[in-house]
Amino acid sequence: MLKKIADALETVKEKTPLVQAITNYVTINDCANILLCFGASPAMCEAKAEVEEFVSIISALYINIGTLTQEQYEAALIAAKKAAQLGKPVVLDPVACGAISRKSIVARELLATNSISVIKGNIGEIKTLAGFSGKVRGVDSLDDGENAIEACKSLANEYHTVVAATGKTDIVTDGERTCLIENGSSMLTLITGAGCMAGAITAAAAGAVEDKFVSSAAALLAMSLAGEMAEKSLEKPLPGSFKVKLMDSIYSLTRDDIMKGGKAKCL
Amino acid sequence: MLKKIADALETVKEKTPLVQAITNYVTINDCANILLCFGASPAMCEAKAEVEEFVSIISALYINIGTLTQEQYEAALIAAKKAAQLGKPVVLDPVACGAISRKSIVARELLATNSISVIKGNIGEIKTLAGFSGKVRGVDSLDDGENAIEACKSLANEYHTVVAATGKTDIVTDGERTCLIENGSSMLTLITGAGCMAGAITAAAAGAVEDKFVSSAAALLAMSLAGEMAEKSLEKPLPGSFKVKLMDSIYSLTRDDIMKGGKAKCL
Amino acid sequence: MLKKIADALETVKEKTPLVQAITNYVTINDCANILLCFGASPAMCEAKAEVEEFVSIISALYINIGTLTQEQYEAALIAAKKAAQLGKPVVLDPVACGAISRKSIVARELLATNSISVIKGNIGEIKTLAGFSGKVRGVDSLDDGENAIEACKSLANEYHTVVAATGKTDIVTDGERTCLIENGSSMLTLITGAGCMAGAITAAAAGAVEDKFVSSAAALLAMSLAGEMAEKSLEKPLPGSFKVKLMDSIYSLTRDDIMKGGKAKCL
Repeated sequence: MLKKIADALETVKEKTPLVQAITNYVTINDCANILLCFGASPAMCEAKAEVEEFVSIISALYINIGTLTQEQYEAALIAAKKAAQLGKPVVLDPVACGAISRKSIVARELLATNSISVIKGNIGEIKTLAGFSGKVRGVDSLDDGENAIEACKSLANEYHTVVAATGKTDIVTDGERTCLIENGSSMLTLITGAGCMAGAITAAAAGAVEDKFVSSAAALLAMSLAGEMAEKSLEKPLPGSFKVKLMDSIYSLTRDDIMKGGKAKCL
Repeated sequence: MLKKIADALETVKEKTPLVQAITNYVTINDCANILLCFGASPAMCEAKAEVEEFVSIISALYINIGTLTQEQYEAALIAAKKAAQLGKPVVLDPVACGAISRKSIVARELLATNSISVIKGNIGEIKTLAGFSGKVRGVDSLDDGENAIEACKSLANEYHTVVAATGKTDIVTDGERTCLIENGSSMLTLITGAGCMAGAITAAAAGAVEDKFVSSAAALLAMSLAGEMAEKSLEKPLPGSFKVKLMDSIYSLTRDDIMKGGKAKCL
Repeated sequence: MLKKIADALETVKEKTPLVQAITNYVTINDCANILLCFGASPAMCEAKAEVEEFVSIISALYINIGTLTQEQYEAALIAAKKAAQLGKPVVLDPVACGAISRKSIVARELLATNSISVIKGNIGEIKTLAGFSGKVRGVDSLDDGENAIEACKSLANEYHTVVAATGKTDIVTDGERTCLIENGSSMLTLITGAGCMAGAITAAAAGAVEDKFVSSAAALLAMSLAGEMAEKSLEKPLPGSFKVKLMDSIYSLTRDDIMKGGKAKCL
């Protein structure tokens, strides 16, 4: 699996996928920057009057419902439908599903467009969408519970998507194949946007690599491993410095880093 | 007072208050990050269709009127009214009051909901709201004038709130008790968002500590002292590096730092 | 020319121009921060209900159409018209012209208000507006082609503006005078917002210096030279660290740096 992941990350750098993001305003800058670090070309095109046209030239679409102004909501639906028509991969980040009822409603509305290739959320959000009991507080997941893998598989099968769930252990599944990723750093929870950034690069990988199970595992492993390396590069574990190093680490991640430091386990 | 402030900051870290922010898009990322560094859990929930529901689970609400799109304006009013109903503390940051007439109108509209526990602004904004002559230029305050304390007390008494005013000397008052904070760094004026970040953590403290006079003093002192420490940690006084260190400093602020470095004077 | 540029940069620091920005949410924080580093006073005032009043007190207006929500679109038109009435300089940043048809339509609508003093775009965007064949992909320009200078001059003459085009070589022209700037760093393409930040400080310079040809050349040279210096100050060329150093470098840029390191060639 690590070899496939390393190949996938190289493919992203070769293809420079154009990633359209309709995303929250909290971490929109971080998402654009990490896409550049990851080897993709970001375009935060989200105006209602623009999204339909733009979808035709993209490699992949990232929809993050964290802010979800009325205009973003309408734009996301238009873009998702167009992407479905054109067969462009779409990654849905169902931020705060389980904490805010509108988020679940909109996530399901987007899933119903049959455009979503990958659902990337934290374990709590995924459990909520899967109909498993999940405790979600605000935008953070507090539930890494046992039936997490089952919930991911169930959701993947329900919507015929890949599910990529972040947590202490990341879970990626297409309903049949399942991969657990054991990399990571607790410092990723000390900055805002680690989840969003993981989602953005999941879209980039989906835009460059055919197999969305592999591409999603590659993106989550890259994020978690970069977090580990960023933490190690610091003298003291401080969040401001960590964020700077995280960008540096994603950018400089090598095949060798993946092969030596990657912890991916296929079930 | 320093002991109370140190206790308050520890209480925040123990309780991890969930802070909802309806805030400007310029510094929304900084506010989320500093809330995490401060020990709070940020949720930038601001969509009109979501805010009312969300207020029911929060510890405190931060309303910053810096961007104030039409949707944010409507959402802020809904959220403030709901917070008043539920008795949740609300911190109002009346950005640019005195420079833009709509800001003063909206600030008064929000104050009229009787939800506001703390008004956190710069001295110029506070003077404007208090009806004292203030010169405000753009979003920066140019007026640290003599009657600043009087203006703060007057505003606190008018609306039965705590007033927390930032400036060279920070002023915190509930109309009776008044505390002056002499910490700070001129470098805080070289980055955008120092005021917003102070406001966000004022909301976090209000969400964890009963006495809003103490909680507000704790937040402003933490910000000013972290600014001082960030400046001292730099070889050269440069704003890009300073911002990184500011996050690091807020995160690593100890009881000892407060007791030794804090400069709070009760009047 | 370097002497004029160095003088212009000093004039900005002396006058502290108040710059109103209606700009995209991706880099709005970076734009505010770089304006502070550059010696200007940023005010991201963009609410439709506020912009007309605010224009009356500003030194210059920066309009960046990267996000362009419906409200921003309406606000930009109102602000541009008011600026034309009051004779305030306006810098237009026609982000993604050539990639998204609405962007070109809106850019022309804004140009038709006769308020625009400077058009600051990348070469691809400028070529599109000038009616020269340009290949633009997403928000990045892929075309540094030969007829770039001709396109800039043609656009400058059509709208009686200064045109400031960024690329490997930056081009600044008022239709008669033309200046090429050979400073820069390839790392500026590894972070988001280099173009937006260049636009924001172009507005700051326009708000402080009478001759918009000189002010625009000063802004682009400052940005490109700061990029160079930031790159040199790094041990390794990593984008997270680069962005921090870029802010530091713009802030600490001296007359001496300009005179020794500036590469401006007048045609």
